[in-house]
Amino acid sequence: MTDRRQFRDLASPAEAREAIGSLDLTPDPEAVPLDDARGRVLAERIDAALDVPGFDRASVDGYAVRARDTFGADEADPVVLDRIGTVHAGSEPDVEVREGTCAEISTGAVLPPGADAVVMVERTDDTEAGIAIRTSVAPGDRVMVAGADVAAGSRALGPGTLLTPREIGLLSALGVDEVPVRGTPTVGIVSTGDELVRPGGDLHSEAGQIYDVNSYTIAAGVEEAGGEAVLYPHAGDDYDEMERLLVEAADECDLVLSSGSTSASAVDVIYRVIESEGELLLHGVSVKPGKPMLVGRLEDSAYVGLPGYPVSALTIFRTFVAPAIRAAAGLPEPRTATVEGRMAVQERYSEGRTRLMPAGLIEAGGETLVYPVDKGSGATTSLVEADGVVEVDADTDYLAEGETVTVQLFSPDVRAPTLLGVGEDDPALSRLLDGLERPRYLDVGSRQGRRRLRDGVPDVAVVSGPSDRDVDAVDLGGWTREWGLVVPGGNPRDVTGLSDLVDRDLRFVNRSTDSGLRASLDAALDDLAADRDVTARDLADAVDGYDLTVKGFESPARKVLGGAADAGLGLRATADALDCGFVPLGTESVRVLAPPDRTDKPSVAALGRAIDTALDDAVSDLSGFDG
Amino acid sequence: MTDRRQFRDLASPAEAREAIGSLDLTPDPEAVPLDDARGRVLAERIDAALDVPGFDRASVDGYAVRARDTFGADEADPVVLDRIGTVHAGSEPDVEVREGTCAEISTGAVLPPGADAVVMVERTDDTEAGIAIRTSVAPGDRVMVAGADVAAGSRALGPGTLLTPREIGLLSALGVDEVPVRGTPTVGIVSTGDELVRPGGDLHSEAGQIYDVNSYTIAAGVEEAGGEAVLYPHAGDDYDEMERLLVEAADECDLVLSSGSTSASAVDVIYRVIESEGELLLHGVSVKPGKPMLVGRLEDSAYVGLPGYPVSALTIFRTFVAPAIRAAAGLPEPRTATVEGRMAVQERYSEGRTRLMPAGLIEAGGETLVYPVDKGSGATTSLVEADGVVEVDADTDYLAEGETVTVQLFSPDVRAPTLLGVGEDDPALSRLLDGLERPRYLDVGSRQGRRRLRDGVPDVAVVSGPSDRDVDAVDLGGWTREWGLVVPGGNPRDVTGLSDLVDRDLRFVNRSTDSGLRASLDAALDDLAADRDVTARDLADAVDGYDLTVKGFESPARKVLGGAADAGLGLRATADALDCGFVPLGTESVRVLAPPDRTDKPSVAALGRAIDTALDDAVSDLSGFDG
Repeated sequence: MTDRRQFRDLASPAEAREAIGSLDLTPDPEAVPLDDARGRVLAERIDAALDVPGFDRASVDGYAVRARDTFGADEADPVVLDRIGTVHAGSEPDVEVREGTCAEISTGAVLPPGADAVVMVERTDDTEAGIAIRTSVAPGDRVMVAGADVAAGSRALGPGTLLTPREIGLLSALGVDEVPVRGTPTVGIVSTGDELVRPGGDLHSEAGQIYDVNSYTIAAGVEEAGGEAVLYPHAGDDYDEMERLLVEAADECDLVLSSGSTSASAVDVIYRVIESEGELLLHGVSVKPGKPMLVGRLEDSAYVGLPGYPVSALTIFRTFVAPAIRAAAGLPEPRTATVEGRMAVQERYSEGRTRLMPAGLIEAGGETLVYPVDKGSGATTSLVEADGVVEVDADTDYLAEGETVTVQLFSPDVRAPTLLGVGEDDPALSRLLDGLERPRYLDVGSRQGRRRLRDGVPDVAVVSGPSDRDVDAVDLGGWTREWGLVVPGGNPRDVTGLSDLVDRDLRFVNRSTDSGLRASLDAALDDLAADRDVTARDLADAVDGYDLTVKGFESPARKVLGGAADAGLGLRATADALDCGFVPLGTESVRVLAPPDRTDKPSVAALGRAIDTALDDAVSDLSGFDG
Repeated sequence: MTDRRQFRDLASPAEAREAIGSLDLTPDPEAVPLDDARGRVLAERIDAALDVPGFDRASVDGYAVRARDTFGADEADPVVLDRIGTVHAGSEPDVEVREGTCAEISTGAVLPPGADAVVMVERTDDTEAGIAIRTSVAPGDRVMVAGADVAAGSRALGPGTLLTPREIGLLSALGVDEVPVRGTPTVGIVSTGDELVRPGGDLHSEAGQIYDVNSYTIAAGVEEAGGEAVLYPHAGDDYDEMERLLVEAADECDLVLSSGSTSASAVDVIYRVIESEGELLLHGVSVKPGKPMLVGRLEDSAYVGLPGYPVSALTIFRTFVAPAIRAAAGLPEPRTATVEGRMAVQERYSEGRTRLMPAGLIEAGGETLVYPVDKGSGATTSLVEADGVVEVDADTDYLAEGETVTVQLFSPDVRAPTLLGVGEDDPALSRLLDGLERPRYLDVGSRQGRRRLRDGVPDVAVVSGPSDRDVDAVDLGGWTREWGLVVPGGNPRDVTGLSDLVDRDLRFVNRSTDSGLRASLDAALDDLAADRDVTARDLADAVDGYDLTVKGFESPARKVLGGAADAGLGLRATADALDCGFVPLGTESVRVLAPPDRTDKPSVAALGRAIDTALDDAVSDLSGFDG
């Protein structure tokens, strides 16, 4: 642990943007086939090389005439002309319209020589004497003259134009089938760190392995920003291998991103490679998260080192790198990249550097509310529990409740969830959520759920188990669930109830105190303590593993399945789903509560209806729903 | 022209939506690799199959300790522990932390057996006696316990979730490398009409051929809506060939779109194919444009027949078909699909059916203004001169100036132009526009330019030539251009001036009266008439082709180049660019005018600066700029 770098001279965010802006990652323009051109950006102006239409064109089905022949014609007194032939769309006229004659013509067909107007078929009659024209027309009527749509030589599309379907349409009309477009910046992604395994690979948790989150996340971000991502094979912390990969990426790409390891030794290796094969422009930015960001050149390519934690990496990528990729691709900042909202709660801050605060969105009362999401930068769940980040200046002490802030969304495609729920986790709830559009649910447990409901942020809280605190809320309905001890299939240790945990040598796994299940367990333990005339704490101390708490509703059962425990606190539904045995201890009611001012919100109403529907179906269901 | 279908029983737009909604174009779900999953939609819920992290994990670099060993330690009175080994990230601990000992540990490494907390390295000293711990810690400090981020069994992502980079991140963390997603609806596009040629093919204008605009435009629209477009070879108006292609497309695709021909006979053929191989649900919708829309089933596929004109086709596609494709793909309506704005002018309407009015956008005075763009549905330029359509109810007589309307953009990627210019076309202007971001310029000529400027819609009007009408505007600068007669290279007919057009047998091509060049020509003709003491009309009548007007500034020169005329009205710059001869008749000043209330608009100011810069560079330029 020698040579550990300290970030003494941190650059400001503005300096970091400037350093990245000074790098050249713009690829050469290229020509692409028209059917691949959507979403690309024109590299140069397109002038029309031909007239559109290329000929005087009938705008309607009817008869091509000499306008002067129709002079004076009207419904009462038609002019009769000799029909001398027909001109179809897509064929060259083989007739000439002379005085007193006309030619049948289809929409889009070439106006035959001699004719200077078209009479629409609805104003004519095909009579024995000839074609009766029941209206008079002027020269040019119902004719689109050559070049009237687009004149050859005129400016069609300017450089920098983003090609959407309509521009593809205009280019089609001009016959352009190879389109000169800005090149796509190629971005090489090198992930480092001995502990990383690509998704799909075998994970050895006991050896501290984790799945590599950043490579695919950043690759998706690169492509969203208009770049082409190139993933390089995973490098460990080995200097030679990392150097070889970084240099290979620099040879092949306009920009190289390294990402992955949070270990100081890996950062040291990257330093040395950049310093020997390129130039380090800055190391360390005065921003939270993202302090350990690197910017430099690697051979002829641009280089940015992203922080290791996924939320930090995506935040820094989105804030500093994606704009540079878009600029190199010629793409504008997406219109949906940010949203404005008002802070739902106060948020204090004073660290003396810019903060990119992860924030979630919620729509309530016709406006967008913003709440901070701070689970620590190591939590990947922050990725989906936040919608973006709020940039808070270094000299801002706090954001006031109600203050308007701008959220830089993680992606232009991110949209605020329709429903924010908090509280207990439960398999029946999970099925209910499946029926809603874009819900967000934070399984913070019943106790936290009640607290957050009081804070006024979420739309609903899902709570279970006993509580000594009331909350002002409307009960949308709920269901009961059977809880107890999940044991191995067949119940090999013959567990019969709570007393066994206290009295016998059984390894137990508990849930945290936030969980409603835990509150139910503690209530049962209180009852047992009263029966035995001891304190509940005495009993708890006698349970091996009472303080061993795990997070998810399935987690104790999975510990049991893995052989790490003889019994775990859980639901009958879980025991059934995982083919475990189950020792029932009681039932508890799960309630879905909404603040009175949110019950009209469509998603809240939809959840209420979903509970009612589930109640109707409950006969065939393990859980007992009660609206 | 027998069997011409009349659209007697037109469906309402709501009935059309319902008919399309009744078709099943939802493909089966599929599994895609994680690195192809961005932009796709989850087909089913993803529950976490593992804990994240999968082990108790050090959150910082430091020392793994037993918390109770640090009790009472502080800066003044550190506790010294024996360093018994090191645990690196990505490797299995080979030490156990017992009383009085500690293990060096890296961020992300597995907490070794016996340890229950980590002390960050900054609060320690490596001394000769051992590791001095200068702080006391509690169990769990600086440790992320297994499952703390994501607990196995918990709900990770719901069905219907659009996968953006952050969801890719969470799936990565869970090790998911094959993602169950909604299928991509395949949409076959069959273009019909004998007159159509695919872009890039040879075009025979004399035979009435035009480039096929709809195929690539609609294909781009399909892909933007989340479908996969399949283009079928172009079918003429031949029944057997069209039937074969439609049936092939129906076999291979979830939805078949036909598009292209506006001819009634082609529509008849399609009718017969749909009626024999499927079912026609509706023919004709009471909407302008788009009346001839067809909806039905073709074998097991859905079928929609789009109108032939490109603007009509894209409008109907965007209004009725794209939502069905998005629904089948599980994608939400993009947030940027519509914008609100206020009508810049009044627009009357009374046709008794819903109108999808093409409309352009302009940003002015901090708000979005909307103006109708009606060039007739046959004009492909409406595609890029409008930004979308406003749906106007059948019973609406007019939209009032200032009324708020919703514009359904042609694409979610469409953005309002930064500058709307109107007026004269000019090669120097075209170069100036190249330097601006997203300008829109309508070459309507000087006369129309002045008129529209008075109407208050555009940001600038570019005018040249004499005018008897003044307009209240700020002159941003301009340049002079030399005009005269463009003749074949070498001037074979030895044209010397305007008199030759009057007195000799020369074929001339003029510009329309909207053009400033034409005004300059007419002024010169007035002078010549005064000299000769005749009327200008007398002289005009003597010029062969005086009334033969063409649209673009290069168009007369191109007629001359093509041998259709001996002289054309044009610019020296055009003659030089096309290697023609040139007979100068005068110079005229091109002025760029802005309404007084728009001069501060950034794009207008930028255009003013661009003129000034061009003035500075004018020494090396053909045109004489004068700011």
